[in-house]
Amino acid sequence: MGREDHRRVAIPPPQPFVKSLENTLKEIFFPDDPLRQFKNQPPRRKFILALQYLFPIIEWGPKYSLNFFKSDLIAGITIASLAIPQGISYAKLANLPPILGLYSSFVPPLIYAVFGSSKDLAVGTVAVGSLLTASMIGNVVNANENPKLYLHLAFTATFFTGLFEAALGIFRLGFIVDFLSHATIVGFMGGAATVVSLQQLKGILGLDHFTSATDVVSVMRSVFSQRHKWRWESAVLGSGFLFYLLLSRYFSKKKPKLFWISAMAPLTSVVLGSLLVYLTHAEKHGIQVIGYLRKGINPLSIMDLEFGSAYLTTAIKTGIVTGLIALAEGIAVGRSFAMYKNYNIDGNKEMIAFGMMNIAGSCTSCYLTSGPFSRSAVNFNAGCKTAVSNIVMAIAVMITLLLLTPLFHYTPLVVLSSIIIAAMLGLIDYEAAIHLWHIDKFDFLVCMSAYIGVVFTNIEIGLILAVGISLLRVLLFVARPRTLVLGNIPGSEIYRNVDQYPNTNNVPGVLVLEIDAPIYFANASYLRERISRWIDDQEDRLKSSGETSLQYVILDMSAVGNIDTSGIGMLEEIKKILDRRELKLALANPGAEVMKKMNKSKFIEKIGQEWIFLTVEEAVGACNFMLHTYKPKTATDESEMNSNNV
Amino acid sequence: MGREDHRRVAIPPPQPFVKSLENTLKEIFFPDDPLRQFKNQPPRRKFILALQYLFPIIEWGPKYSLNFFKSDLIAGITIASLAIPQGISYAKLANLPPILGLYSSFVPPLIYAVFGSSKDLAVGTVAVGSLLTASMIGNVVNANENPKLYLHLAFTATFFTGLFEAALGIFRLGFIVDFLSHATIVGFMGGAATVVSLQQLKGILGLDHFTSATDVVSVMRSVFSQRHKWRWESAVLGSGFLFYLLLSRYFSKKKPKLFWISAMAPLTSVVLGSLLVYLTHAEKHGIQVIGYLRKGINPLSIMDLEFGSAYLTTAIKTGIVTGLIALAEGIAVGRSFAMYKNYNIDGNKEMIAFGMMNIAGSCTSCYLTSGPFSRSAVNFNAGCKTAVSNIVMAIAVMITLLLLTPLFHYTPLVVLSSIIIAAMLGLIDYEAAIHLWHIDKFDFLVCMSAYIGVVFTNIEIGLILAVGISLLRVLLFVARPRTLVLGNIPGSEIYRNVDQYPNTNNVPGVLVLEIDAPIYFANASYLRERISRWIDDQEDRLKSSGETSLQYVILDMSAVGNIDTSGIGMLEEIKKILDRRELKLALANPGAEVMKKMNKSKFIEKIGQEWIFLTVEEAVGACNFMLHTYKPKTATDESEMNSNNV
Repeated sequence: MGREDHRRVAIPPPQPFVKSLENTLKEIFFPDDPLRQFKNQPPRRKFILALQYLFPIIEWGPKYSLNFFKSDLIAGITIASLAIPQGISYAKLANLPPILGLYSSFVPPLIYAVFGSSKDLAVGTVAVGSLLTASMIGNVVNANENPKLYLHLAFTATFFTGLFEAALGIFRLGFIVDFLSHATIVGFMGGAATVVSLQQLKGILGLDHFTSATDVVSVMRSVFSQRHKWRWESAVLGSGFLFYLLLSRYFSKKKPKLFWISAMAPLTSVVLGSLLVYLTHAEKHGIQVIGYLRKGINPLSIMDLEFGSAYLTTAIKTGIVTGLIALAEGIAVGRSFAMYKNYNIDGNKEMIAFGMMNIAGSCTSCYLTSGPFSRSAVNFNAGCKTAVSNIVMAIAVMITLLLLTPLFHYTPLVVLSSIIIAAMLGLIDYEAAIHLWHIDKFDFLVCMSAYIGVVFTNIEIGLILAVGISLLRVLLFVARPRTLVLGNIPGSEIYRNVDQYPNTNNVPGVLVLEIDAPIYFANASYLRERISRWIDDQEDRLKSSGETSLQYVILDMSAVGNIDTSGIGMLEEIKKILDRRELKLALANPGAEVMKKMNKSKFIEKIGQEWIFLTVEEAVGACNFMLHTYKPKTATDESEMNSNNV
Repeated sequence: MGREDHRRVAIPPPQPFVKSLENTLKEIFFPDDPLRQFKNQPPRRKFILALQYLFPIIEWGPKYSLNFFKSDLIAGITIASLAIPQGISYAKLANLPPILGLYSSFVPPLIYAVFGSSKDLAVGTVAVGSLLTASMIGNVVNANENPKLYLHLAFTATFFTGLFEAALGIFRLGFIVDFLSHATIVGFMGGAATVVSLQQLKGILGLDHFTSATDVVSVMRSVFSQRHKWRWESAVLGSGFLFYLLLSRYFSKKKPKLFWISAMAPLTSVVLGSLLVYLTHAEKHGIQVIGYLRKGINPLSIMDLEFGSAYLTTAIKTGIVTGLIALAEGIAVGRSFAMYKNYNIDGNKEMIAFGMMNIAGSCTSCYLTSGPFSRSAVNFNAGCKTAVSNIVMAIAVMITLLLLTPLFHYTPLVVLSSIIIAAMLGLIDYEAAIHLWHIDKFDFLVCMSAYIGVVFTNIEIGLILAVGISLLRVLLFVARPRTLVLGNIPGSEIYRNVDQYPNTNNVPGVLVLEIDAPIYFANASYLRERISRWIDDQEDRLKSSGETSLQYVILDMSAVGNIDTSGIGMLEEIKKILDRRELKLALANPGAEVMKKMNKSKFIEKIGQEWIFLTVEEAVGACNFMLHTYKPKTATDESEMNSNNV
């Protein structure tokens, strides 16, 4: 193949700076192009579309039918039966008055029904968020000594959760949640579930005092140092209900049609436990009960937000951390079910919905709410069709608040502990961890760091550890890109990695290297050293085997997505190093960004446009042509060749 | 082209976990393979090589010749003439006794000559490091009120600098320095130089009191609030010397042969200035002078290291920050000159050398030293051959310390300020900043954030800002990878990006997309949405133009270097989305890592091995074959086709 006829690698047409900035920003913040549907529409239609965009209920509401309502009614009642006992349990977990659990299942689901775009999400409080609230606010204010301040800080934190979530959505920063990888969430949730379950030993064993630390060592020390205070009555009752709850779950899993057994089990436990205590007066024999619950729906709490408090920073921090976790769970849950039912969820819109419901919640005596997996799964299995099931649940909870709260007076705390443990055991997804180990060891490492961090230190450290290690992986990918030697696949003109395709052939006198990442400041030095080492290795090998000595180095740039000034500097250095060694450098298939920057920095002139090829094949062809035509290579040939091509 | 004959994409042979971990760790920590030369050597030779590795002086020492010495002698004396006034000036900048500047040009160069591998680096104190020391330690201890503690903390910080640098080298973590990109350093150095120059207004205007803050607003306020105290004598003298220094630099730049004019100018200024003061008794008319300097070489300071101090954390923090900056400058300088002279510098070895010289320095009354650019450039221009020029400089400084210190008694401080300003103006590399703007806007942004951060807030914040933005770029590259539509280049079987090659042709019924980055948790959601959007766009386009409707989507995986479990999950979702839309998914050229993980996660079985192709060309060929053979597509055809190929 001659050298003159090779196709030129195109330099993309220059783009004005503002235009290119606009494109970049659009890809970062509007990758889903939300304004797409507004294009070429009359103003009236645009207005309706905008309303539908902001309030999805306007979109699906008019199409709502009686058949849908039948399904939603059943689903709503089912999740209400789960929401009431879980709400009370999780509020206890957050060291908040139990009634808050009910309040939080009333207002937020109504708000979500208006703003939310998921048809399957069931809104409610979450165990991990509750525990985080307890541990972060509990760090600065003791819930027993100063319950009022603690309560107000919980509202304030919820307000900031809402503000933070809505802001992420409005400013299209939803992708921050993507940095909590699946592996991180599996490990983090498993660790949190372990920690929460261990904390329930307090309830199961009927202990009064307990450590506020969440790590396994403190908890175990607290449990075993109080051995003389263990209450066997409590333990027997707790174990019994736990056994019942797990058994019902086991059957539901075996036959998905029987999901309602598992869904109803918590409420059944509460009813049975309360009856038992009422009939046997067990509350006087060491069984602690919930006690008095105020009748009536949510009181306003907007005046309780403590913006002037000395603990404002704690509230903000708690709000942001719990908000992030709540979003990660809620959005993942929403997306999974949307995937099943073949509809789309807009992450940023969901964040605004979550934010609205938490802001509204913080003003109406609710604390942190999200879309818990367990409740949403029950909703889905019960056949919900739209967010109306959330409205049904809210109404059911409202009726409970107005009329039925006295019934919970005798509910034993130990039953709540059993309900929490049963829910938590389902979150420890050891199968997912094994799956990670099989597919990707690094993901397993991330998952285990999150788990161990949460279990042995505390929830925040576990989370930071896992996110840190995940980011380290991304940085390491860029800092230590792979450089691959390519060889010719026999009987073709294709060049591929010799490790992946062991039967490839070397091209005599030519080293083909593929660089597998963008060339940035973080890897420029590394690449320079690594490429030099490849050349050394190759020359050693050729010398010892007596083959044609190395004359050309081809860098396959197909996988180099971008390059910065340090990267251009590195290429210039490589060029110098090769010149000194009397080797020729050729580039194959540099992309648009790379060509643009090599052009601006005049590197194309330095290397020579004729040494940049469209494919590795053409580059090898040109090198072979040169090798056979101008052998042995002399300075004259070289200059003559250059003059031919310029 | 038939479908059955296509070449299979290879799954790399499985590798034991330990082996693959070993390879990964080797690439991270030993990319330069430092043990390479030890292979296949007798034990005696290995021992000598190891000694030479640890003490490079053993390697070049025996080959040292008289000719080399002549060159090194001249270079050494030249840099000593620069080192003495600069040393005194920078020590004043660090709020330390001026004599420390001389001490620091005596011991550290000797240590570097033994451990260092650069032939051109001239060791000494650095302006930015001095300023950082003053600002970080000055934050907790006032140098005027408690000079002894301040001095001891400076030694302690230097000790930790050394420890940190040596540890980075020993644990092969030198790549951390790579995260300070060229753009960061340009901006940071420029900002620091601006700040340092402005601080010199104190000396130039002969002010007694001055702000310890470094930001431009505080400095300007401090200058202009004391307008009545400005000393015109001082200002005239300072401006005169500054003019002289800049003029001499200008001539040296025009004629590189005249480098010695610029190199000698600071010493000449000091001599002239001192004479002037001595003869006119200007010290009694508002010109401040250095005053008494103790005779004799470095006293030991090992007992002054304050490991028990309450300010230990400040010392450690100062040590680490200044160490990092000193390393970044020193190693960049060493590498640049090595590149000129065609020899290699091992970053990790250099770090150990820098660490040793700072540890030794901290025990012998020296503070932070590195390889300043200005001094090394003079060394290089003066024709140095080896590190012996550092030894010559050290001896010259020693003679000064033993005999000549009284001569500096009358040196006016204003001359030192002029020397500092002249040196700093050379560090403001506005041409580099313009270059960054032309080539890479993002690098320019990084550079400007560093500059503005340093000038308007403080040095540490500027640095953190720039590093943060640099890392953000790397994360953004992974979080928002580009997806490119490929088209066929006419008259070839090559498929390339349609934006870069506008004359490419679409393949009817087929969408070819290239993914430009590893598929990780951070971009999995984005890619899912972006790919869906490409398909929507394409279908809209085809519908409106009445072409063949879309039937196949080919993902070109050439540039996907790696994939994690979230990425596999994303591919599975894409497969489901395409199935629902009755589109077929094909993959082209997945790499070794990707194939390995798709195999382990059984994704290959889900998509079908026959839908994974070696090249885009083969994938398109197969799709075309199917389109023409099985048109119109029915369910029967589909299943028949599958049974043919499994």
